[in-house]
Amino acid sequence: MSTQEYYKPIGIIHTPIKVPNGAPIQPSAGTKIKGSVEIFPEYIKGLKDLLGFSHIILIYHFHQNKTYSLLVKPFLDNQLRGVFSTRAPSRPNSIGLSIVRLQRIKDNILYIQDLDIIDGTPLLDIKPFIDYFDNRKTNQIGWIKDRISNFSKTKSDKRFC
Amino acid sequence: MSTQEYYKPIGIIHTPIKVPNGAPIQPSAGTKIKGSVEIFPEYIKGLKDLLGFSHIILIYHFHQNKTYSLLVKPFLDNQLRGVFSTRAPSRPNSIGLSIVRLQRIKDNILYIQDLDIIDGTPLLDIKPFIDYFDNRKTNQIGWIKDRISNFSKTKSDKRFC
Repeated sequence: MSTQEYYKPIGIIHTPIKVPNGAPIQPSAGTKIKGSVEIFPEYIKGLKDLLGFSHIILIYHFHQNKTYSLLVKPFLDNQLRGVFSTRAPSRPNSIGLSIVRLQRIKDNILYIQDLDIIDGTPLLDIKPFIDYFDNRKTNQIGWIKDRISNFSKTKSDKRFC
Repeated sequence: MSTQEYYKPIGIIHTPIKVPNGAPIQPSAGTKIKGSVEIFPEYIKGLKDLLGFSHIILIYHFHQNKTYSLLVKPFLDNQLRGVFSTRAPSRPNSIGLSIVRLQRIKDNILYIQDLDIIDGTPLLDIKPFIDYFDNRKTNQIGWIKDRISNFSKTKSDKRFC
């Protein structure tokens, strides 16, 4: 299939993380970081009923990612891994996903917490996180298993810039 | 921001679900349904190390969704809800997300289980599901709370076709 899908940002994510270097590598490692999502006026109506969910899934475009590799050295490792077995930003389609805490909504601004997202990131979608739908008991986490102990102290660096 | 993001499918999802009508509304309600993901040859190298994860996140394009509404009646409800507080396919950017079980990989084919995805869906990305990163203890699930008891018996219907 050679078609392309076209997506138009519905908002912008504002965070104190100005550069990838030193950022948390996952939302669950960045629990003290707060930011906001600015939703463009034409989409505000779609925010109805969102307040009331403690967690939301943000789907966004890794806007600082200019190229991709099928093999990458992820932040947690020093070996080349298939990009689809990692959460690295340098993917064929630069789509990022973060589950963040929703604190409050005022007009078109969502106040969020637990961030690993770079300031200025274009937002593509918001979905409610529903534990009944989205939590899984995994029995295998592949190459991550031996690296998970480094998870909360590992930070992003410049490797994907 | 008026720019658009362009994404090119990396594969196609094959499932026995031929029409939305009657399909499970979430992967966790479709645990008996098996299917496969065909990865296009140019991306095969990126599958390295993926076998070893019991669950993967598929990000795909809701290809049967032609328009969107900011207010929708989700499958679990009979009231109009803001689309971003639902998982309905009729979203401004038609991006779908399913966490499925990965059973095996043979060449460029991933054999998967726990499906709620329509046959022929274009795949945009695969990410490993990592319980340490992705599970959340939610304390609020909004309007879903009073509807969750209907979750496993609710099926898709034609409302978003």
